[in-house]
Amino acid sequence: MSGRLAVIGLGPGDAYHRTAEADAELAAAEMIYGYGPYLDRVADRDGLVKIASDNREELDRAGAALASAAAGHRVAMVSGGDPGVFAMAAAVCEAVEKGDPAWRAIDLAIVPGVTAMLAVAAAAGAPLGHDFCAISLSDNLKPWSVVEKRLSAAAAAGFVIALYNPISRARPWQLGAAFALLRQTLGGDVPVVFGRAIGRPDARLSIAPLAEADAEQADMATLVIIGTAETRIVERPGLQPLVYTPRFSGGA
Amino acid sequence: MSGRLAVIGLGPGDAYHRTAEADAELAAAEMIYGYGPYLDRVADRDGLVKIASDNREELDRAGAALASAAAGHRVAMVSGGDPGVFAMAAAVCEAVEKGDPAWRAIDLAIVPGVTAMLAVAAAAGAPLGHDFCAISLSDNLKPWSVVEKRLSAAAAAGFVIALYNPISRARPWQLGAAFALLRQTLGGDVPVVFGRAIGRPDARLSIAPLAEADAEQADMATLVIIGTAETRIVERPGLQPLVYTPRFSGGA
Repeated sequence: MSGRLAVIGLGPGDAYHRTAEADAELAAAEMIYGYGPYLDRVADRDGLVKIASDNREELDRAGAALASAAAGHRVAMVSGGDPGVFAMAAAVCEAVEKGDPAWRAIDLAIVPGVTAMLAVAAAAGAPLGHDFCAISLSDNLKPWSVVEKRLSAAAAAGFVIALYNPISRARPWQLGAAFALLRQTLGGDVPVVFGRAIGRPDARLSIAPLAEADAEQADMATLVIIGTAETRIVERPGLQPLVYTPRFSGGA
Repeated sequence: MSGRLAVIGLGPGDAYHRTAEADAELAAAEMIYGYGPYLDRVADRDGLVKIASDNREELDRAGAALASAAAGHRVAMVSGGDPGVFAMAAAVCEAVEKGDPAWRAIDLAIVPGVTAMLAVAAAAGAPLGHDFCAISLSDNLKPWSVVEKRLSAAAAAGFVIALYNPISRARPWQLGAAFALLRQTLGGDVPVVFGRAIGRPDARLSIAPLAEADAEQADMATLVIIGTAETRIVERPGLQPLVYTPRFSGGA
């Protein structure tokens, strides 16, 4: 008998930012796989087994979860944000394609969640207000030349740019290189939003013009949004400024 | 006394797809503004006034909601999906910038939700698995030449492309023109996902190669995702195929 695998987006922070669907799938699971800090966001209960793994072993983790589901268990796998955005859903699909043919018969559900760029945008105002793109700065999974090409194309075409995985100990220079590259096309005045751990108690939001944007402001829990020439800042007395990109868009 | 305005993302469908935060903000509101079909998704209750408006009068609607909040009311404004993605949050920020200076003191909260491309991607597998962009095909708000430029740039740089507002009675030809343009760069084999009303009872998902993608398959409630040369289809016996874009990405 084949079980079920639900790949669940936990959203940006605690349960307050989860959908009812995500809660229902978590409540129905017998086993939950995921990176430790995401598992910690799910309350312990009798009958629930948590299986933590390293964040870099995505394909192995996907295979283990599929094998458990194929054995008849109700299995969940959790990602922060949305599972389809630089997270586990693609690894699970890849494991289904490459793994045991029996895995193709598993009842597989992908449960969407609020991905980090939406949470950071909401905290800042509406910086993603017109066309935008999402780029992961991790070059574990693609050559840096591809990242450069995409950054330049996006800036030249007038997309707002959301940067995921901007920096880590193993990737210390990429965000600074991205800022330098983007200044060539965008100039120094466009607003940059740094959103760290938005939706969590240690959340921090900051805004800087691209000329002053400093990679030191980011860490692994940060998402960076780079506006366009049209992005605006609205000052508010006693409140954080609003950053928004108008719905109307001229020639880029 | 100044009130509060919460701009709330309802997610793709009914309450099952909303966050707990969205539910809490809806429960606390005295007045809810929005486009009629979105207001219909919020349960009626004593003490709650719903104010429907035409979907095209975004700035007027934003101003009315801000004026009510400035008068001391607890006001909500609802968008389908996420309010920051081709929805009301940017119009509200614009109204704050251009309107009564007193509006800058309003307690303004933007409450994120699951935007349509995440819901459609989850229903299909993981087509947004690597870098991607979101483009609105509405040219009410920008010249068609800007849309063409962004489509071409995105395809050439290897972004998966999510198309919002693909078609309407007033814009019947744009989606067909977009497919024709993209075939020049991408060829005919890349997978196209049409997701209609995902998360609702009348949901419908279909997949076609770009060569056969037909604008007639889309309506106003459809979101379209166009893969890259790397996007894959995994056939499953008795189940819908999975569409996913690998996390690894070669040169584009």
